[in-house]
This record gives sequence, C-alpha cells and structure tokens, in this order.
Amino acid sequence: MGNTRLGGKSVILRLEIQTDTINFGQVASVIFAAGGDIVAIDVISTSRDMTVRDITITVTDSVDISIITEAVKNMEGVRLVNISDRTFLLHLGGKIETQPKTPIQNRDDLSRVYTPDVARVCMAIHEEPDKAYSLTVKRNTVAVVSDGSAVLGLGNIGPYAAMPVMEGKSMLFKQFAGVDSFPICLNTQDTEEIIAAVKAIAPAFGGINLEDISSPRCFEIEERLRRELDIPVFHDDQHGTAVVLYAALINALKIVGKSIDSIKVVVCGIGAAGIACSRILLSAGVKNIIGVDRMGAIASGIQYDNRMLQWYAEHTNPDRVQGTLQEVIHGADVFIGVSAGGILSREDVGHMADQPIVFAMANPVPEVRPEEIEDIAAVIATGRSDYPNQINNVLCFPGIFRGALDCRASEINEEMKLAAAEAIASAISEEELNPLYIIPSVFNQHVVKAIRDKVVQAAIRTGVARRTPREYR
Amino acid sequence: MGNTRLGGKSVILRLEIQTDTINFGQVASVIFAAGGDIVAIDVISTSRDMTVRDITITVTDSVDISIITEAVKNMEGVRLVNISDRTFLLHLGGKIETQPKTPIQNRDDLSRVYTPDVARVCMAIHEEPDKAYSLTVKRNTVAVVSDGSAVLGLGNIGPYAAMPVMEGKSMLFKQFAGVDSFPICLNTQDTEEIIAAVKAIAPAFGGINLEDISSPRCFEIEERLRRELDIPVFHDDQHGTAVVLYAALINALKIVGKSIDSIKVVVCGIGAAGIACSRILLSAGVKNIIGVDRMGAIASGIQYDNRMLQWYAEHTNPDRVQGTLQEVIHGADVFIGVSAGGILSREDVGHMADQPIVFAMANPVPEVRPEEIEDIAAVIATGRSDYPNQINNVLCFPGIFRGALDCRASEINEEMKLAAAEAIASAISEEELNPLYIIPSVFNQHVVKAIRDKVVQAAIRTGVARRTPREYR
Repeated sequence: MGNTRLGGKSVILRLEIQTDTINFGQVASVIFAAGGDIVAIDVISTSRDMTVRDITITVTDSVDISIITEAVKNMEGVRLVNISDRTFLLHLGGKIETQPKTPIQNRDDLSRVYTPDVARVCMAIHEEPDKAYSLTVKRNTVAVVSDGSAVLGLGNIGPYAAMPVMEGKSMLFKQFAGVDSFPICLNTQDTEEIIAAVKAIAPAFGGINLEDISSPRCFEIEERLRRELDIPVFHDDQHGTAVVLYAALINALKIVGKSIDSIKVVVCGIGAAGIACSRILLSAGVKNIIGVDRMGAIASGIQYDNRMLQWYAEHTNPDRVQGTLQEVIHGADVFIGVSAGGILSREDVGHMADQPIVFAMANPVPEVRPEEIEDIAAVIATGRSDYPNQINNVLCFPGIFRGALDCRASEINEEMKLAAAEAIASAISEEELNPLYIIPSVFNQHVVKAIRDKVVQAAIRTGVARRTPREYR
Repeated sequence: MGNTRLGGKSVILRLEIQTDTINFGQVASVIFAAGGDIVAIDVISTSRDMTVRDITITVTDSVDISIITEAVKNMEGVRLVNISDRTFLLHLGGKIETQPKTPIQNRDDLSRVYTPDVARVCMAIHEEPDKAYSLTVKRNTVAVVSDGSAVLGLGNIGPYAAMPVMEGKSMLFKQFAGVDSFPICLNTQDTEEIIAAVKAIAPAFGGINLEDISSPRCFEIEERLRRELDIPVFHDDQHGTAVVLYAALINALKIVGKSIDSIKVVVCGIGAAGIACSRILLSAGVKNIIGVDRMGAIASGIQYDNRMLQWYAEHTNPDRVQGTLQEVIHGADVFIGVSAGGILSREDVGHMADQPIVFAMANPVPEVRPEEIEDIAAVIATGRSDYPNQINNVLCFPGIFRGALDCRASEINEEMKLAAAEAIASAISEEELNPLYIIPSVFNQHVVKAIRDKVVQAAIRTGVARRTPREYR
C-alpha cells in the first residue's frame, strides 16, 4: 500500500467497466474530480467489452469517500462491485491464526507429537494433572470470552459481530505480552449457560478474560466463575478500566499534591466500570466516594432493586449526601466519568475543589470536552486517543495476565490489581510527569514487564501463586 | 540435538552433583558403562560444593534407559532431579500457539484492528451475519473437541490428559491443510452438557471435529450437533477411519479383481468405528456385511438394548447369519477388524474366500499379525506405521475439512465422505498399486488437494455448499 498509510484514508473500489461505453481515462478523471488520488490499479479480469479492476484510492481526511463512490455510480457503463477499505482488508479471513510450534516433517516427528508416542505424555498428565501446565498450551493461553451483549459502545450485537473485537484482543495479548489466546464468542446470553460453557472449556486455558458482557449479568458471571474455577477470571471492562484509572489517579495526585485518603471523588455512571473503579479506589484508601447515577447520588437509606447498587450504597458516600451530579460535584477533588457524553459542564468543573482532576472517559464523546476546561482543570484524562492521557485498558490486560500465567495464579485478586496500577503509574518518572503526561503509551515497551513483575510479587505475597518464577526463588 | 535424531533414543538427565563427594568424570564413566553416550552437557547452576547439569544422552534402541537412570541413582553424591526425553521436550508449553496475522506497530494499526475502527467491521457483520465468514477466523477455523473419555487406546483419561492429542491434531490440521484449529477439551462427560457447550462456542468456528468421545454417547452427540448447528460436525474416530478404510478397500479390490457389490465383508468390533466403517461400505454398495461383536454375529431377530446395534441388525447381515467370528468368517472376502489384538487366527484366514483381504486395525496389537498370514492373504492392512498399508485417519481429516471450509459446507455428508475416500484411493496410480501399497503415505503432498477438490465437488453436487470456490464458478 506504500504511501497510502501516511495520513488520509485509503479505499479500494472494484469497478466493472463496459469498455465499449467508457474508457478508463474517463473513470479516472471523475475519481480525481471528486477528490480521490488513484495510487494503484489491479486488473482482476477482462473480456472483449468488459474489464474488472481494483482501483486503490487515497483521500485526505477531509474528503468524504461517499462523494467519490456516488460519482462513480453515476457514470454510465461503470458498476461499483465492491468497496474495501484498509480496515476491512485487514479483517479478511480473521486476524489471528494457530500455528504449530514445530514442523512435522517426517514419520519420526509425527510419532512424537501424535500417535503413538503422544500417549506417554497423556499418561504423564493423567497421573499428575498439574503437568497440564508444563505439557500443554494451558501454561500460556487465555480464553477471550464474550457473549456479544455489550460490545464497545455498539450495544448487544451478538457473538458473530463481537468476533472482530475479541480477535483484536487476542492479537494484543500476543503482541504485547506473548500470551496466546483464543476468542470464544458464545451463542447464548443466559447467565447459567455462559457459566456452564466457560467451565466446560476451561481445561485448555490458564486464564479467562471476560469481555463486553452487559451489566448486571457480568457481575454474577464473573463472581461465579471465580469461585468455581481454579484459574484467574478477569472481566476486563470492569477491572482493566479500574486498574488504568487508578494508575492515572496515582500520578494525577502527585501533580496536585493531594493524598489519596483526603480526596472527595465523584464517580458518574454506576455500571460495571463505575463500580469496579470505585472498588479499586476503596481498596487503595479513598475514603469519600460518591456515586451518581441517572437518579442522582447513590446513598444508603435509599432502596435499590439492583443488588450491586445496594452494595454500592452501603460501601460509599459516608456522609449520605443526596442530590444531582450538579449538586454533589461541589467541592469534589476528582471527577470520574464512565457515563455519557456532555453531561458535565465547565460551570460544574468550576464548582469542584481547588486543582480539580477530571477523568471524562465516556466514548466517543467525553462527559466534558478537554478544550472547554483546560484552563481551569489541573489534570484531564479521557478514553480517547486524540487527547492527552488516554485511559485505555490495553495498558493493563496483557501485563496482568502475563504475570498471572507466569506464577500460575489461581486468581487475580485486589492486591494484584493495585500492584498492576502502581506499575503502570511508575512507568512515568518524576521528571517526565506533567499534567499532559500521566499515563504511559500502550506502545511503551517497559509497561508490560513492570506490571508482570509487580503482579507476580503480589500473587506470591497473597498466597495465590502456584509456581514461583525462577527469579523469585 | 544434532545427531541424536539419527536413530536411537535420546534423553536428558538433570543431575545435582555434590562436587565434594564425586566428580563429573566419575558420573560420565557410570553413564557410559550403562550404555549411554553423552552428547551434550549444559550447566544449569553451580555453587561451591554443588553443580546442576543437564546431560543429554543417546542410547541405541536396544538399551533400556532405566538401566542408566538406576545406575545414576545409585551413585553417592548424585541426585537425579529430572528425566526429559525428546517427546516430552517437544510438549513443553504445548505444541501450538496463536499468532496475529499482521503486527500492530503503531497507533494507526491499533485503531484498525481494535478500537475505534474495528466497530465498523462489527457492524458490517451485525447487519449481514454471513460476513462472519469473510471478516473473522470462522472461515478457516475448526474446533477439535473431546471430553477425554476414549483417548487413543488409553481409555477415559479426562480432558487435561487428552490435550496433547488434540494439540497434535491442531498441528496436523495446519501443517497438512492450512486449517487453523483450536483444541477444546471439555470438563464434562454429560451428553447434554457437551452438546450445549459446543453449540455455545460455535460462532468462532467453521467446523467441529469431534474426537475421542466414547461410544455410544458419541452417536447422539454427533447426531444432535449435526442437526442443531449449521456448520459441519465430524466425529473423526468414526468417519475418518471409515473414509480411509474404504479408500484402502477400493484399491484392495482392484488387486484381487472383485467388485464391491459381490463381496462378503465381516466387520469385527461394532463400536463407533465399526459402525461407521459398515455404514460407508453400505453407502458404497456392499450388499453383504456381517458385524461380529463379543456376543457373535449381529442379526435381526435378536433383541439389542443398544439403539445403534438394533439399527445395525436391521441394515446388515441380509442372510441373518448367526454364530461366532470363527464361524461367520468362512467364505468372507474381506475381514475388517476394529476390535482387539490377536482374535483372528491364521486358520480363520484360511477359511476365508479366495484372495482374502484382511484389514486388522486394532492398536497397538492387530487382530492378526501380518507376518502370520502374509503367504495366504492377498492384501493386508493394519493401523500401525511399522507395517505396510497403515489405515490412518491423518490421511482424511485435513483434506475433508479443507474442502468443507472452502465451500462453506453446512455439513459433511455421505457423498462427501465417499468422494474423500475415492480421492485417497486415486492418489495411487494403477502402475504403483500393489499389495504392499494400497494407501498413500500421510506425507504424500497430493492427497490433501485431491480430497479437497472431490469434497468441494460433492458438496456442490449435493447442495450443501454455501459458497462456490472460484474455480468451480
């Protein structure tokens, strides 16, 4: 694709051109006039009066590709067979593959990796089940499990449409942490059926990464699987987000010079991520967290049908503050948004305590746009990659599973999550730290190793490690 | 490992040697005296009075490794920490891995394979579910599913111990046919739970290869999954064996000059494989099949508790012959053994029809040893690789799934299996064909392509192909 990757968008139009009606020069002129730059042409097939060609076109970001496709469609003698863009091309046939680690070149190889000699390996595991960790893929493999019920911001799009996200996650696991993983998209959204299916397939895996499962089912599914399986189960939407959020907060507090046990935090949006963020902050020593939902502040004394909200009311908001977001934000040191775009105003931020920290993580539109408050907020972070300080769970899950697998942890507990957050925060030195740089890039090559080491240490310390890596013996 | 692969066995002994008690020269002498040739030494750790070393030793096939290990154990000052052999070393950490097809090198790559751009791909599948075949791994991926209830000849060793076989199968799928696959070993042996789990995980897969599930559960599991899923479900122990068996029979009949509709076939051992072999022969036009179990010939008129045996009685043995194997073998043209070692004698073969064909597939000991009957049988095949004519389902499953995936078949039907067998048989030309060469080697590079083509054609012909590969359009 050459220079097409340097900015701009790139699409490939497959055109069927009636050569007795129109010539290619005329087609090229129309595309050029509509703002497209033709960078490659591949002839797919050709006959006496017809030719099929793939035309690769780049356009600058400001040009709408539909202008070009409409112009093409309006030409007589031209049929637009197909439009492919680079993203779709990258997805053709899926994004991951399974590979033998060694080739099978002859009968000798075959007899070792398969019958008859594999029987000895099977029997060794049969006699000592723990050997599954040394003699099978279990040692290094995580299942990325979703039911497609809450995929990105797209909602309940089902297991087939969820696959590209889970495959992407598998790529990231391998690329960033050397963890093998396989996407398991479940054709059921029934809690018990999901639990049964995950338990059934667990033997091949050393860990389960739950993903994009809607609330409140995600809580019971994770809780039950954690209790009923002896391998780590980690719902990334909850805990991945919470870990990176806490990492960002550690560094933001350094900048404003406040201590974690003295701050007032308002968490807006009490779904899976909001609850997990609140939980990790409680574990980290935050005393005053006020959760705000559409109904206003969550406080004990109010009755909630939802078991998780009931729990939340009992464990947060020590002063039993009631009111709307606009009311409870007064005097807050930290705003954490995992809710909806645009619900926090500049005026609201003006009512926060001195040096306010605003983490507006709603996607794609943050609770408040950074440019609206950059002069009055001390530190701002979002969920987006086009602003500074992106709170992105890609920073967390590869390293945390790398650590859990390396020490054969039976679970990923609260201490391991806190340790992961501290490792992420520490990837930025005191000298580098500034309001526009509180979170390392996902491409920072030191982060995974730092998380892994801290997670292993925490697992050993808390007694959930079933193997001590050589360097800690 | 260098020359250690040239014949003989190779093991690695990890020894902890007290250097104040014994020196390495003394250890080496003892190993040499016991028949071991030291070909490599790796120092693992060393301290003032102790050293840990990995000693790689080759021995000829006639030497028992335990003689060496016993000699080592008896030395004062030496502790045998561990023994590894090449087969076990090949299994360390498992035999397969998952790999991204493209690297994620920068933010641009990340945003295409993952958020935010992956959302467009998700929505494309959501709007048109069939696109799962073009935009996810479904197009090329098979689940290798077992419950570990009947693994090789090892019996019910469970899902953990079954993993090495399923991983081996995944390697073979990729290496021989370019099919991605993932081993799913289920932690349940309940028929309904297995069916539910496989249905739940199906979205990621283009086919299900069932493996090593014990009879009679395997029949219902396969039948139900075939009915309730829209992707091919294929129990390899049944149909893989049947396809290769029929391929072998096609060629054996050419040698003896008999036609398939005139022969009398005795099938010994009416389990999953025996029934599948009988079924494919019925489909292929064999008229007279007599199944023999421990209770003798299976015939209609006798009452069977087992639904499959009842079916078998009604569809075979047209003359309602009764009696033991020794009785019904009289006059048979073909013996097919999928039972137990040594149950067929030279005398029995002597009572068969002229030019008897004997397929003694029991493993590891065949129903009759080829050397006992080589002067009186026209064609002999076994399940072993150390005799000519190995009936090995490795010949079948890679190609049959390659074909099924390439045309997006909704099932693998009888016509596709027959086509696969014919493709295997035709890999040996009339000139090459002889009694010691009726089945191609699993390393014959033409077999997979030949099977694939015939299977695709059969799928199109029988209306189960949902895509027509370009060359057949």
